[in-house]
Amino acid sequence: MTKSALQIARASYKAKMPKALNGNVTIKEGAPTQSVADHDEIKHLFPNTYGMPIIEFVENTEKKDYPAINVGVILSGGQAPGGHNVIAGLFDGLKKMNCNSRLYGFLLGPAGLVDHEYMELTGEIIDEYRNTGGFDIIGSGRTKLEKKDQFDKGLEILKKLNISALVIIGGDDSNTNACVLAEYYKRKNTGVQVIGCPKTIDGDLKNEMIETSFGFDTACKVYSELIGNIERDCNSARKYWHFIKLMGRSASHIALECALQTQPNICLISEEIEEKGQTLNDIVSYIADIIAKRAEKGMNFGTVLISEGLVEFIPAMKSLIAELNDFLAANGDEFALIKKSEQIKYLIGKLSPKNSAVYASLPENVARQLAMDRDPHGNVQVSLIETDKLLIEMVGRRLEQMKNDRTYVGKFNAQGHFFGYEGRCAAPSNYDADYCYSLGFAASILIGEGKTGYMASVRNTTKPAEEWIAGGIPITMMMNMERRHGEMKPVIQKALVKLDGAPFKTFAAKRECWAMTTDFVYPGPIQYFGPTEVCDQPTKTLILEQNGEI
Amino acid sequence: MTKSALQIARASYKAKMPKALNGNVTIKEGAPTQSVADHDEIKHLFPNTYGMPIIEFVENTEKKDYPAINVGVILSGGQAPGGHNVIAGLFDGLKKMNCNSRLYGFLLGPAGLVDHEYMELTGEIIDEYRNTGGFDIIGSGRTKLEKKDQFDKGLEILKKLNISALVIIGGDDSNTNACVLAEYYKRKNTGVQVIGCPKTIDGDLKNEMIETSFGFDTACKVYSELIGNIERDCNSARKYWHFIKLMGRSASHIALECALQTQPNICLISEEIEEKGQTLNDIVSYIADIIAKRAEKGMNFGTVLISEGLVEFIPAMKSLIAELNDFLAANGDEFALIKKSEQIKYLIGKLSPKNSAVYASLPENVARQLAMDRDPHGNVQVSLIETDKLLIEMVGRRLEQMKNDRTYVGKFNAQGHFFGYEGRCAAPSNYDADYCYSLGFAASILIGEGKTGYMASVRNTTKPAEEWIAGGIPITMMMNMERRHGEMKPVIQKALVKLDGAPFKTFAAKRECWAMTTDFVYPGPIQYFGPTEVCDQPTKTLILEQNGEI
Repeated sequence: MTKSALQIARASYKAKMPKALNGNVTIKEGAPTQSVADHDEIKHLFPNTYGMPIIEFVENTEKKDYPAINVGVILSGGQAPGGHNVIAGLFDGLKKMNCNSRLYGFLLGPAGLVDHEYMELTGEIIDEYRNTGGFDIIGSGRTKLEKKDQFDKGLEILKKLNISALVIIGGDDSNTNACVLAEYYKRKNTGVQVIGCPKTIDGDLKNEMIETSFGFDTACKVYSELIGNIERDCNSARKYWHFIKLMGRSASHIALECALQTQPNICLISEEIEEKGQTLNDIVSYIADIIAKRAEKGMNFGTVLISEGLVEFIPAMKSLIAELNDFLAANGDEFALIKKSEQIKYLIGKLSPKNSAVYASLPENVARQLAMDRDPHGNVQVSLIETDKLLIEMVGRRLEQMKNDRTYVGKFNAQGHFFGYEGRCAAPSNYDADYCYSLGFAASILIGEGKTGYMASVRNTTKPAEEWIAGGIPITMMMNMERRHGEMKPVIQKALVKLDGAPFKTFAAKRECWAMTTDFVYPGPIQYFGPTEVCDQPTKTLILEQNGEI
Repeated sequence: MTKSALQIARASYKAKMPKALNGNVTIKEGAPTQSVADHDEIKHLFPNTYGMPIIEFVENTEKKDYPAINVGVILSGGQAPGGHNVIAGLFDGLKKMNCNSRLYGFLLGPAGLVDHEYMELTGEIIDEYRNTGGFDIIGSGRTKLEKKDQFDKGLEILKKLNISALVIIGGDDSNTNACVLAEYYKRKNTGVQVIGCPKTIDGDLKNEMIETSFGFDTACKVYSELIGNIERDCNSARKYWHFIKLMGRSASHIALECALQTQPNICLISEEIEEKGQTLNDIVSYIADIIAKRAEKGMNFGTVLISEGLVEFIPAMKSLIAELNDFLAANGDEFALIKKSEQIKYLIGKLSPKNSAVYASLPENVARQLAMDRDPHGNVQVSLIETDKLLIEMVGRRLEQMKNDRTYVGKFNAQGHFFGYEGRCAAPSNYDADYCYSLGFAASILIGEGKTGYMASVRNTTKPAEEWIAGGIPITMMMNMERRHGEMKPVIQKALVKLDGAPFKTFAAKRECWAMTTDFVYPGPIQYFGPTEVCDQPTKTLILEQNGEI
């Protein structure tokens, strides 16, 4: 591996940890817990891991003896900054308890467990990856650990390697599955513990006890760096509207955090659009109206942030997509015979009047995309829709009309951007480096203490690291029953943007002002070596959620 | 202006300068100079500013007295990191010579001079913009200062404000025009000096005396940060080929520098493609071949860098575009009557056989773009072609064929990216902050010494700043005659990537290895506060050009 100068300098960074984790640790158990809803069903499904107490780690005066154990670790799902530090923290924690303990990494995600692909993670390897981005130390993958035969296949290799605990680093689904696995291994008396770690850059795995998922901090800072650079360009050239789509399909936390950091003229929060039942037309009107008002003041430029999942949150679009999916599933053969150039007309004639009207209003390339590009299950691939370009085209058309009506005098030139892959594997910020290392270290203690079905937790992170509170949260505590693929399943509740939460309310209170005044903020790149107010700040979302104000 | 924490911390950074500029300065003049070619024509066009000596600033034992003067400054063309520091250096230099001197900024580019839009730049304003990105202090614009009536209009306001020197910060064209203006004002005995400063993030304004244009360093570092992040993602997920288009229409310096920094699997250098007379087909074969070879080793992922101007450097595409422009100019009315869905077929029937075949081989959306999206002069808008997507589509098709021929076994999933606006207004790196400040300061001394038709120059910049050499270069020295819009014009030679230069040769020697080994390098974000090997390095291009090796 050829290393950059920054990578070399950064390798020696010592991640900060909660005070309780630095010395000898013992656990403090709280009262029994309940799931967030559907208590009886969840309890019934998880008889061995339901109702366990919240655990907090506290300093201990004496050193405990822990036996040597072998542990496995899996990176599950999309990359997020800090994954390597979770593994480093886990490794250091295990070695501190007993220097003869060993850590194995399963390769390319959960599939590595099922297919018995693994490597031992030695101190030498771990040192190569401290404070770096990416999941490349063992790779990641999207295989879902859901079925009994997968669990049994996994158990074979765990037994063979004498592994008595497995750490699964992943998002809400992966942690749900970690808990199902914990329950299964416990029920079968396998002696294998399973611990989860909260990861998603989307920020949608969080709740009262899990303040944030790791990677969100770094990814938002990278995107905000780029948005700030574009805003400064926008404000210098004064001739473009920049439409910037941001990763986050099911929740708009990233768009909201980036808006709080960079103060754009417009930011569309999907959860608000759904709540208000807005149409694409409403959204286009909202944007065009601000553009026209700025044009009146001679400002033919601005910045618009858009959450990736927007289209799926617009009720009318959701309904259109659902009907398209059903129609094409039932009439695929007939549709395949229609000439390409006639397909859109054909569909307009077949859809129900309401959906037909919505479909007819879409720009040609989007209508075409909805008709033709379907995934292996025959579903429309909403993620392929270039929402930035869709809005640019529709807003452009609207402004043309407004020009004819003399309600708009200005020039509209626009540029589209999408930021996703740019931030998923960035080297972790100090916050994520510290948070992840502490999470991994906490996971090692949960293992040492014989726990299973827990998620590692580090709280109070808007304070200096030594005041952070580490422990473990029973995963069943975060669950409820939801319909997935037509079946009721126990799942961890996804955290969407709360419209009555401080982050959204702060944004909502300021957006009218930001729309008209061009009060862009330029956060610049993540810094690792400078003053603490530059290098060690958590996200504005977290500060607002914890403290109510920035 | 709401400021980010980094902006506040960075405001107090003291830009480093060449030793000679820190104390009292005097000038050392070299021998008379000649233009790079076409001596007689250039001399004839610039009788008053031709042949002047190269100037070097040296330390002086005594302090000179300079009269108070008023100076104007213009930002011309696209944004580049460091423009604000040029202005800060100019301001500080002028004030150091005489604290009663004043600086005026003309607004939104050269148009501000012609239209008499300006503001005085006070110390308070300058302090707000030190070490920041963007050109928003006075804005920029693309009006070309070329005509006598523009010069005369400009002179009116210069006289009114009692301005005796004008600094034009711009690229090759803007500096050519600065020299034309210098000659004009000198010939007319207006007493107004004109000084240029070398800016372009593309890096194509450089020569023996101008080592680099400002902004190139920062922009390449921002793009390399993002490329590195994507590479790390690529190497973690192991399932995507990322095609990344990089700003730089006429020269591939940015793509080459980013390749040297990040070691991608493939990088396409336009100058090489033109030199070798490659076709689009050749390029597709080259990429598909590497993808197939990596697939054989189970590596269905990789990273491809593409220079923005690629399409215009492919001789066959250049010829096609030229014929399309001519044909559509002559037959626009007839073409307008053709049904949209028939346009491509129509053009295939009309073009000459060779160009027709090339046109027919293009993906539909690109063929459509070439036929329909024309600029106000009726020319095809090559910059709108999404080269990343064009190549993804063509490579994908080729790989399908190869699959049928059993010469490829693998999965090809690709993602396209384009980085341009993301880097143009980034806050300057230490290098650009220092270089720009020194350039501005040097401009002030050229003014103080009564010079005109010079470009500020700072050389030896791979050494520590105190060893840098500052001075001025006669702009005519960089000129030759070139055909522009059908007329022979005196212009500064554009610096393209030299295929026999050390940067390209270093890349060429390593690319085969990089193609197969996945030796990605992750440079990470620009750092301002860390160790010097992280914060103060110039580009690899510059180090190679100066020292022959990295």
